[in-house]
Amino acid sequence: MQRFALLGAGFIGSVHAANLAAHPGVDFALVYDVDQARAEALADAHGARPASDLAQAFDPDQVDAVFIASSTNTHAENLRRAADAGVAALCEKPIDLDLSHAVDVVGYATARDARAMVNFNRRFDRDYVELKRVVDSGEIGQVELIQLTSRGPAMPPLSYIQVSGGQMRDQTVHFFDLARWIADLDPVEVFAAGSILAEPRLAEFGDVDTSAVTLRLSTGALVQIDSTRRTGYGYDERIEVLGSAGLVEACRHRAGAVSRYTAGRVVDDGLHSGWFERVQPTYAAALVHFVTALENDDAITPSLHDGLKAQAVAEAAARSLTTGKSEPITYPTPQS
Amino acid sequence: MQRFALLGAGFIGSVHAANLAAHPGVDFALVYDVDQARAEALADAHGARPASDLAQAFDPDQVDAVFIASSTNTHAENLRRAADAGVAALCEKPIDLDLSHAVDVVGYATARDARAMVNFNRRFDRDYVELKRVVDSGEIGQVELIQLTSRGPAMPPLSYIQVSGGQMRDQTVHFFDLARWIADLDPVEVFAAGSILAEPRLAEFGDVDTSAVTLRLSTGALVQIDSTRRTGYGYDERIEVLGSAGLVEACRHRAGAVSRYTAGRVVDDGLHSGWFERVQPTYAAALVHFVTALENDDAITPSLHDGLKAQAVAEAAARSLTTGKSEPITYPTPQS
Amino acid sequence: MQRFALLGAGFIGSVHAANLAAHPGVDFALVYDVDQARAEALADAHGARPASDLAQAFDPDQVDAVFIASSTNTHAENLRRAADAGVAALCEKPIDLDLSHAVDVVGYATARDARAMVNFNRRFDRDYVELKRVVDSGEIGQVELIQLTSRGPAMPPLSYIQVSGGQMRDQTVHFFDLARWIADLDPVEVFAAGSILAEPRLAEFGDVDTSAVTLRLSTGALVQIDSTRRTGYGYDERIEVLGSAGLVEACRHRAGAVSRYTAGRVVDDGLHSGWFERVQPTYAAALVHFVTALENDDAITPSLHDGLKAQAVAEAAARSLTTGKSEPITYPTPQS
Amino acid sequence: MQRFALLGAGFIGSVHAANLAAHPGVDFALVYDVDQARAEALADAHGARPASDLAQAFDPDQVDAVFIASSTNTHAENLRRAADAGVAALCEKPIDLDLSHAVDVVGYATARDARAMVNFNRRFDRDYVELKRVVDSGEIGQVELIQLTSRGPAMPPLSYIQVSGGQMRDQTVHFFDLARWIADLDPVEVFAAGSILAEPRLAEFGDVDTSAVTLRLSTGALVQIDSTRRTGYGYDERIEVLGSAGLVEACRHRAGAVSRYTAGRVVDDGLHSGWFERVQPTYAAALVHFVTALENDDAITPSLHDGLKAQAVAEAAARSLTTGKSEPITYPTPQS
Repeated sequence: MQRFALLGAGFIGSVHAANLAAHPGVDFALVYDVDQARAEALADAHGARPASDLAQAFDPDQVDAVFIASSTNTHAENLRRAADAGVAALCEKPIDLDLSHAVDVVGYATARDARAMVNFNRRFDRDYVELKRVVDSGEIGQVELIQLTSRGPAMPPLSYIQVSGGQMRDQTVHFFDLARWIADLDPVEVFAAGSILAEPRLAEFGDVDTSAVTLRLSTGALVQIDSTRRTGYGYDERIEVLGSAGLVEACRHRAGAVSRYTAGRVVDDGLHSGWFERVQPTYAAALVHFVTALENDDAITPSLHDGLKAQAVAEAAARSLTTGKSEPITYPTPQS
Repeated sequence: MQRFALLGAGFIGSVHAANLAAHPGVDFALVYDVDQARAEALADAHGARPASDLAQAFDPDQVDAVFIASSTNTHAENLRRAADAGVAALCEKPIDLDLSHAVDVVGYATARDARAMVNFNRRFDRDYVELKRVVDSGEIGQVELIQLTSRGPAMPPLSYIQVSGGQMRDQTVHFFDLARWIADLDPVEVFAAGSILAEPRLAEFGDVDTSAVTLRLSTGALVQIDSTRRTGYGYDERIEVLGSAGLVEACRHRAGAVSRYTAGRVVDDGLHSGWFERVQPTYAAALVHFVTALENDDAITPSLHDGLKAQAVAEAAARSLTTGKSEPITYPTPQS
Repeated sequence: MQRFALLGAGFIGSVHAANLAAHPGVDFALVYDVDQARAEALADAHGARPASDLAQAFDPDQVDAVFIASSTNTHAENLRRAADAGVAALCEKPIDLDLSHAVDVVGYATARDARAMVNFNRRFDRDYVELKRVVDSGEIGQVELIQLTSRGPAMPPLSYIQVSGGQMRDQTVHFFDLARWIADLDPVEVFAAGSILAEPRLAEFGDVDTSAVTLRLSTGALVQIDSTRRTGYGYDERIEVLGSAGLVEACRHRAGAVSRYTAGRVVDDGLHSGWFERVQPTYAAALVHFVTALENDDAITPSLHDGLKAQAVAEAAARSLTTGKSEPITYPTPQS
Repeated sequence: MQRFALLGAGFIGSVHAANLAAHPGVDFALVYDVDQARAEALADAHGARPASDLAQAFDPDQVDAVFIASSTNTHAENLRRAADAGVAALCEKPIDLDLSHAVDVVGYATARDARAMVNFNRRFDRDYVELKRVVDSGEIGQVELIQLTSRGPAMPPLSYIQVSGGQMRDQTVHFFDLARWIADLDPVEVFAAGSILAEPRLAEFGDVDTSAVTLRLSTGALVQIDSTRRTGYGYDERIEVLGSAGLVEACRHRAGAVSRYTAGRVVDDGLHSGWFERVQPTYAAALVHFVTALENDDAITPSLHDGLKAQAVAEAAARSLTTGKSEPITYPTPQS
């Protein structure tokens, strides 16, 4: 049994809490939140205890792993604590919005042989796992073109956008990671074009809500990613991989499978109204992966280095948004 | 080159005329119709000549084959004429609405080694041909259950219904033939339930507009056919064959492939508004088959005997509609 | 909070246990099973207690409701106990395989104003609920034809089949209930044709593995149901309702949404391998419905009378299998 | 009746010949080809006459319109001849591979009020027409993102590629036109990334076989186009338009609608093996449009200026392939 402390009792923390409670190989021990009452309520609901303080959550006598779902600006510090304590860490992305800080902490953690995973949960989506299996099997030959669609249903609150790092670092970064993972190749350059079409106030933050990104992978294979913050028709993501011998596609998910036929048209159930309905099962699957890796002492992926690499792509993409040029991507080498 | 005379210059005759004109192996020679002006107009439009009289259309010095698309009550007589003249015949179904008359003419034609085909055009549908290929290949194992859907968009005129022979003999008979053809087995008994749900005046003719038919094939495999005269949503036919090792389905056809996503729903293009849009290509394909069989002196199917057998199933089905019992199917043996 | 005792700790009991534990309005108190160790293990896993004996499970001081998931031959007796104790009951189908016994117990329960639900879980399927909503809304006009497909992936063990009551009473009965529920109409007659195509030893029990059933509803609308015990391609159920103004269909569910394109074909993810993957969410939804009805003191459906009616259709269908005739359906009137 | 001369009796000329012959409003008069025998054969097959020389094909006493399907390097000269003769022209793209020559001829034709259409046949695809209707209707709000997929099944002969102008000018140019037409907006800048992944010998021509293009439209809306010369799985094109209020998609076309279910997977009919099967109906539809415009003296689109604009986008895209930067698009102004 792996003893876990959960850091962060907000919405996503509550999702993780339910998964921790349901996992037969997890002893869900502690919940920490800066809001003590919120920590207590979440702990109570799942048979865990609130941590008396942050230190308790990293006490190796009480926990084997921490699930870092606290606010973004605490991720790096919590990863350091886990490395110091010799406690494993499952960390929500990003490691740190400031790439150089993120590089530092990864160096720090690596030097201490920390066991850590960045929670790129989409890697655990049932369909994406199958898509990658097909790609890896060679059924479609060599990867030549990947298309990824990342479309949120509605503009997040401006207060969130403002501290999010912008569309590339906050939204598209998940798909940078997916592209790297699917192709098993690193992007070498990136071009990004963006526009403000949905929310004019984004101009104040230098952000965009609609973007088209092109990556060139090390083999010359190309990647196209479109991202929008607001679709008007629900949550939409899909991936298509064109290989030299065929194509594999992870199609959009519908919220149901009912069709209504009337004269001249068929009305089907639409997409999920929110992102969470679409990706919910990936959180439990990611946790299962992490726990299994801990139990078997396997290498843990997506690693902190995977997290850094996706961030490095996002940095170059953000730069390209302003330069109008294809930007080379430099991957940082953490000093450990 | 096969020289053809076309009998009948109505709607379906005009369809056949265009196919005869376009077929590179056909010399489209003559058109006959009781309405001479109509014959002339159709002949003119396709570079053929109007027949001076019916006899010319059967003159073996001028034609190799007749396409019998004249009114139903003339089919049998025209088949006899073709047999007498030694001219091949492609005949719209039915041979004759009166099964005993049909049996007589088939015996007559058989005794004279007539080359003739009943135009069950759906056997030449691209998807049904592929479905049968899958069934014949053994990919889905032994046939266990077939479901066929036969749904017209709108009630035909009552004047048509009245002389059509009723839903079993006019509409469902196509699917009796398809079931026999796909399974390569003869039905041994039939149960039919019918209702008048769309057009109350059908009660005057002892007809129904909505029916559910069950056939038992000689192996014990079962067939379900639903038929309706009026869907409200377009023309709808589909076939599904369940075998011991899998399923093959020829799905509904849509009139287009455009999808519109809005909140909570997706609106796709609907079905064809009429039967003709759905089955149009089958007419040319059936003609190609007939001409090729003539040229190669191959056996011609669907044969007159196939036509009789489908009618025999329809007769038993019509009887079951009134008895409420499963009725045995007796196949007539024409005396030649 | 509704205090529940669960009767039966087998496979389906364990499914219900997880749902009882997760429902926020349920106090999952007790588990009873004839195998005491099995009861203990299941209770432990979900924070419930094993019942000391069957009486405790019906003690109104300790429980408000029982979930009857014990073996079929105990359903009737447990329903009587619940009625005697004034404890609500959620009972797996059937009430009793012997229809006259079932009628007796429903009379008994009704006389005591028992609150009880027969667990026709498919009524709570997300897609079927939506399909019924469309039908009830009038969007497709009057119901004219319903097609239901009930296809299990693999032959159940003969030991199960032997005591199951046969295909009509065990498998198709779910779809008799769905047809009644969707149309809000009672079938008045039934024709059933069946064959043994997958498992010859069924002949020993007078059972069939493949069947085609036609129901006539009180309005003249028709219903077709095909059932097979073994598809070879996975678990397959679907429902299609043809109305006077349109069609609504609850399509097959796929296990995933990945498509692989190679020359000439597209390979999609297939159906679920087993029935449980397809219908799993319905069990939680059915429990939610039952608990909500208890809390609000609403009428509870599907009621015991619904259970009886579906069984009455199955009885007539089983009779038709042997008579080869359409059989009238008589609904029993329990004496209370 | 519009009297037509067809210039060019190659493959695409033969397609146009059949459509000219079948169009009830066309008098298909003449066929010209540098290979006289080929012209004769094609003319014979469709009841037209071979032109004695090129001059006859432009004789306004004999023809009202020419269909320019001759080799690419003759398009411009033939457009000039048509303008001189006052004969309408339907011209295969491109006007001339050299954009400045194309500009000149458009100026020349415009000065003479020439009636001419560039045959961007995809504008007449049934699904794309419907997609544009949806966009124009406002159902999906303002256009924000368009995705177009242009994928050929197999590498064309190198001899063709070499004189084609390259992927941007030969293949992607159709989709530049579609993007302009759908959005009713001009692209203002373009970024293109390309790779040689399928045919290494393309390096000799400075061409690519796989590319990802991003356009920015005048409103800030973005367009992504992926193009490949060789898919390995058939001919694939699709268009998706994301608007502020919804999405409309013209989906891939399948060659049939048969599905085969076996354990764990469903095998559907795949895409068309070649481009022609997919787009064949667009040629007849384009001709109908042109003839109708002539008869009604309507404005003719896509106009020569539309042809120039698509070429201008292709020029900038080709430039971006080598500069690695987003390139501004300058639209030429023909001097008339």
